[in-house]
Amino acid sequence: MEGPSNAFPMNGGEGPHSYTRNSSAQRIFIDRARKLIQEAVAEHLDIEAFSSSGAFLVADLGCSVGPNTFYAVSNVLQAVEQKCQSLGLDSQILEFQVFFNDHAGNDFNTLFRLLPPVRRYHAAGLPGSFYGRLFPKSCLHFVCSSFTLHWLSGVPKEVQDKSSPAWNKGRIFYPNANKEVIEAYAAQFAKDMEVFLCARAQEVVLGGLMALTFGTRRDGAPHSQFITNRSLDLLESCLVDMVKKGTISEERMDEFNLPMYYASPQEVKEAVERNGRFSVKKMVEIVDIHPSANPPWRAGLEGLLKEQMQFEDEMLDEFFDSVTRKHEESSILEFAPEASVTFVLLKRNAAN
Amino acid sequence: MEGPSNAFPMNGGEGPHSYTRNSSAQRIFIDRARKLIQEAVAEHLDIEAFSSSGAFLVADLGCSVGPNTFYAVSNVLQAVEQKCQSLGLDSQILEFQVFFNDHAGNDFNTLFRLLPPVRRYHAAGLPGSFYGRLFPKSCLHFVCSSFTLHWLSGVPKEVQDKSSPAWNKGRIFYPNANKEVIEAYAAQFAKDMEVFLCARAQEVVLGGLMALTFGTRRDGAPHSQFITNRSLDLLESCLVDMVKKGTISEERMDEFNLPMYYASPQEVKEAVERNGRFSVKKMVEIVDIHPSANPPWRAGLEGLLKEQMQFEDEMLDEFFDSVTRKHEESSILEFAPEASVTFVLLKRNAAN
Repeated sequence: MEGPSNAFPMNGGEGPHSYTRNSSAQRIFIDRARKLIQEAVAEHLDIEAFSSSGAFLVADLGCSVGPNTFYAVSNVLQAVEQKCQSLGLDSQILEFQVFFNDHAGNDFNTLFRLLPPVRRYHAAGLPGSFYGRLFPKSCLHFVCSSFTLHWLSGVPKEVQDKSSPAWNKGRIFYPNANKEVIEAYAAQFAKDMEVFLCARAQEVVLGGLMALTFGTRRDGAPHSQFITNRSLDLLESCLVDMVKKGTISEERMDEFNLPMYYASPQEVKEAVERNGRFSVKKMVEIVDIHPSANPPWRAGLEGLLKEQMQFEDEMLDEFFDSVTRKHEESSILEFAPEASVTFVLLKRNAAN
Repeated sequence: MEGPSNAFPMNGGEGPHSYTRNSSAQRIFIDRARKLIQEAVAEHLDIEAFSSSGAFLVADLGCSVGPNTFYAVSNVLQAVEQKCQSLGLDSQILEFQVFFNDHAGNDFNTLFRLLPPVRRYHAAGLPGSFYGRLFPKSCLHFVCSSFTLHWLSGVPKEVQDKSSPAWNKGRIFYPNANKEVIEAYAAQFAKDMEVFLCARAQEVVLGGLMALTFGTRRDGAPHSQFITNRSLDLLESCLVDMVKKGTISEERMDEFNLPMYYASPQEVKEAVERNGRFSVKKMVEIVDIHPSANPPWRAGLEGLLKEQMQFEDEMLDEFFDSVTRKHEESSILEFAPEASVTFVLLKRNAAN
């Protein structure tokens, strides 16, 4: 019952390059999502239908190590309690069980150590890829997942296939690559979303909600203009420099590709409609977010570079130092000062 | 919703002193329990009442790191599938969710890494002390717990209180201590069992089963004759040697006590009957077990000695080397060649 093995969790622990210490940007977005979740629960959660069925089960998919996940789930729980109170239901008798999910390689030890000592829920950790079944049938009432679905289940096969027109030679990502590479990545995103939605459709009760937050590029905007892609472009150029210096081989660079894709809000909507098992109840694009001039890529990409590029600690230091320098010298924020984040609220259909 | 903080998990990882590599003795007992669990499920599980209510939920309380826990739960699942088949029910449609529980300080990262890649259940880790609530109300169908309930929620307060007649001066354990110390430990066990059973009574569905395996001393036998207690007595004498040498202070030795108690089958039975929420459906004492002449105490006690005695790595090596020597020189197996293990099957009453 395990999903794909293509799993590179965020950095664990609480050290300087840990996700725990490098996730404040995501926290700002989660803060923005707080009001959206309150509204979503107030308007769309059939709490009366669920409150008789035992505990209210919440899952945060791709939770990483904390502290954002604790904040996100407490937002959900508060919203549910408020809804109960507004209906005159006794929210005190409602029990919550929260499942923190991430790949089996995630640092669950740190996650569990950081759990709020006083909390309004029973906590469990659930290891496994969300591109596969994780839970028994029809048990979840609310699913949230923040900044996770741009991670694909894996790199599209074609971009690593020398005989394919989508072979991504000399690059690690798609934004400046040829049309075939971009299409292969877009197709992988669509396929992964379908797998994700089918698995969740089995696990979420009828009427249950999913609140998904995506880092998105704006509808119609070229991939190469999206700020995050521009930043990854700088990262790619640092690897190209290392190939030129002979620090890494051309072959290794050719074989390496990032398993990420930043969809547009439209692509997300299409994936949900194609799947048909959830209805889009709300879709909000937030565009006035000021992104970091130097995103903390190390917390997210170190595991990947260690595993697939066999980078040792010293090389990692050298590499991420050069990435930082390139960011400082660049003017990416002037070119693309705004990031787009899309909040989507889905409700499990009764239809299929 | 956290239990007591008095939590000293087994050694994590997969190193030479890890629980993973030092739990073969427990495995032998779990092997013996296999047939008992099959019989228990065949005779006492109302699978027809549960099979309509979604997934079948199993919890292993105090699971440690593996591999014993995977073996134990697979025994339970096989027994349930066999029961389904014997009744002509389709066991394939039955979904299982297994919760692996231990203290938050347990090495869940290793546990999750060692999970069988192909398995018949959805797995979750559940951090927290079983001397407190862990799960929502009425959700568990089968609970197992093997060699865990001799760990008390903490050392009885009186034995650390200089003004109490139960002050355990110069000792770390009760078997050779005065009557008051033994009574304080026995009372703590009874109190902890009550807390454990009350919490489980909330969480286990009516008709749900609990299979508990205890290391027990034989009914009526003095504490000092029980093989495990004799072994811990040798361990105590090594600490006394260290006090004599001045390696550790007398005060520290006086303050340190082991939070463990080996009950008799009769004491276990009395605790269950006093609580009244479960019925004893089966109680089997196995006495022809040949214990290890040198139990792997290090896997279980290292954390405790590090935390409470401030033992550094070097001191731990020295201490456990001396414990090994004392065991080799001793004749404890001649004095008490048999260990007693008690398997208890409990069923959740409908009454209260």
